[in-house]
Amino acid sequence: MLYEINEKAIKLESQGKRIIKLNIGDPDLETPTEIIEAAYAAMKQGKTKYGSSYGELRLREKLASVHHVKPENVVITPGSKWGIFSLMYLLLKGGGNVIIPTPYWTAYDLTAKTVGATTKLLKTELDNNWKISPEKLENLIDKETRMIILNNPNNPTSNVIDPETLDSIVEIANKKKITILSDEVYSDISFKKTKSILDYGENHILVTGFSKTFTMTGWRIGYIIAAKEIVEKVTRLNQITITNVPVFIQEAALKGLEIHGQLTRKIKEEYRTRAEIAGKMLSEAKLEFTKPDAPFYIFPKRHGLNSEKFALNLLDKGVAVAPGTSFGDYREHFRISLTVPREQIKTALNTICEEIK
Amino acid sequence: MLYEINEKAIKLESQGKRIIKLNIGDPDLETPTEIIEAAYAAMKQGKTKYGSSYGELRLREKLASVHHVKPENVVITPGSKWGIFSLMYLLLKGGGNVIIPTPYWTAYDLTAKTVGATTKLLKTELDNNWKISPEKLENLIDKETRMIILNNPNNPTSNVIDPETLDSIVEIANKKKITILSDEVYSDISFKKTKSILDYGENHILVTGFSKTFTMTGWRIGYIIAAKEIVEKVTRLNQITITNVPVFIQEAALKGLEIHGQLTRKIKEEYRTRAEIAGKMLSEAKLEFTKPDAPFYIFPKRHGLNSEKFALNLLDKGVAVAPGTSFGDYREHFRISLTVPREQIKTALNTICEEIK
Repeated sequence: MLYEINEKAIKLESQGKRIIKLNIGDPDLETPTEIIEAAYAAMKQGKTKYGSSYGELRLREKLASVHHVKPENVVITPGSKWGIFSLMYLLLKGGGNVIIPTPYWTAYDLTAKTVGATTKLLKTELDNNWKISPEKLENLIDKETRMIILNNPNNPTSNVIDPETLDSIVEIANKKKITILSDEVYSDISFKKTKSILDYGENHILVTGFSKTFTMTGWRIGYIIAAKEIVEKVTRLNQITITNVPVFIQEAALKGLEIHGQLTRKIKEEYRTRAEIAGKMLSEAKLEFTKPDAPFYIFPKRHGLNSEKFALNLLDKGVAVAPGTSFGDYREHFRISLTVPREQIKTALNTICEEIK
Repeated sequence: MLYEINEKAIKLESQGKRIIKLNIGDPDLETPTEIIEAAYAAMKQGKTKYGSSYGELRLREKLASVHHVKPENVVITPGSKWGIFSLMYLLLKGGGNVIIPTPYWTAYDLTAKTVGATTKLLKTELDNNWKISPEKLENLIDKETRMIILNNPNNPTSNVIDPETLDSIVEIANKKKITILSDEVYSDISFKKTKSILDYGENHILVTGFSKTFTMTGWRIGYIIAAKEIVEKVTRLNQITITNVPVFIQEAALKGLEIHGQLTRKIKEEYRTRAEIAGKMLSEAKLEFTKPDAPFYIFPKRHGLNSEKFALNLLDKGVAVAPGTSFGDYREHFRISLTVPREQIKTALNTICEEIK
């Protein structure tokens, strides 16, 4: 229902209705001017031609140095979502199953199913601080299991997997020879130090993107870090699908990496403030939630809530949120994205708290 | 071998070697300034956020009016190649076969196979002016046939399907209830009036892009025109893969449509001159070929040629061409793209004619 609500919100807006969109993780902050100017300069230099399906070498070299791998381990994708689709398409074609802890980002489940895999969901709970149980994970694995998805920090909970749990998960995956696909798109701007899957060597795969750290959501650029053979496979798929991410967009991302420090500082500060404002209002309305470890989401719960009906009603009142059912079996939850200015967060949360009374 | 030669050419260039690249259809002409400025203006206006997976309504409305369809029949894709992949992925999943006249653009065959379909090739010959035989087409169709691909004008021959042949092909497809996917990415700049699949009503699908007409190859933007149900399916696939084409790129494409007339005039004139220069040199070297009906390609033949060996030797001499084997069973042919300035065409053709003596 996530995408339907979004298309409906876009349609209402195009009809002139004012909607405060807390339904998607698309930050209100502008793409930094330096990044826009870098794209424009690259366009004027004629970087508007076909490029390599691996991505531009300079960008791959820079990312390799950031992540302490080789350029041959890096492939550029049109967003981290394409990274996930292409890896599932290549590694799960012909069946098998994939284990996905819930609450999950909708696209994992939809993508696994569309490529012909089945999904095994591993439920985590608010009452247990969203902790993934290594025992339950191990019990879910069978002969057909080909992949475990981690989303760290998590969308929709903004929870970071604690290092001991992550150690245990990787140990189980290594023992059973199963690939972990770790989506770490929020890790760079996490409020808490987040261990990466790359800290555990070459067996597993990192997928991430520039959208969140560099406020480049609509630019569609991300990357995969994996063993060389997997990078080659993704590149061959790129050749017959997307060809390449526009080179001027890759140049813009490279500029982003150069000004990385100042950007992440600014984003973290702003989102910490927003999370405090929202947290206070949600607490006062007696909603249950865990304090976010990272931007942009909070995933509150109200006992007995029908979140789909709730989300549709709210849309009519000018506020878009995502129902909990979009993230697995979480009917009593809804997700809010703190990706609008503080004043709008207050207005929207007033409407939400009024509606939920 | 097409992609391998291209990656090798890019690598040689990055090592400082000078390569005249006649191997890919990437025009040397710059993206028009008006289009670049439109993209820049849109970026500065904040059109850097997630957009609709259908594409921007304004662009879809404009394209609908150009093609005399409704906006609900239009979906924007990251290049026409994505259009082809997504349609094959959605319509051929689970098997079946697709009929592809040859010589063909490499991606059709690779894509059909990667999505699990088989391909049935329908050979056309230089000696017969590349005419598709409706009788042979009808004989190839069986119960498992789900799609016929047309590429009109054709890559690599630059041949336009004559109206009578196209009428016959569509009649057969309609009778047998098989979808035609017509890739018409070169039709807008064709030297010859080209009939579109859209002239035959709603049963079939048009795929095209902005790359060739607007010199926007590296921008990755194209579109599909199809029945509403197919547009909906592609949009749902877009939602879990590419999300959207960057909105500022869609704005740039919209600007391109506004200045369409002057652009196509300029491109056609330049490529007609290039084709004349190349045609004269190829004739003098006693190579066989048909006079192109459209930019950018010529597909000459030399009896007894091993075009793969020939292409690799040429690359060492600083000229990249595509071997005929990349387009089907055409070992004695090679494809040259006239997508470099006139003087470079002359230099490269001198090297080619010297090598082929």
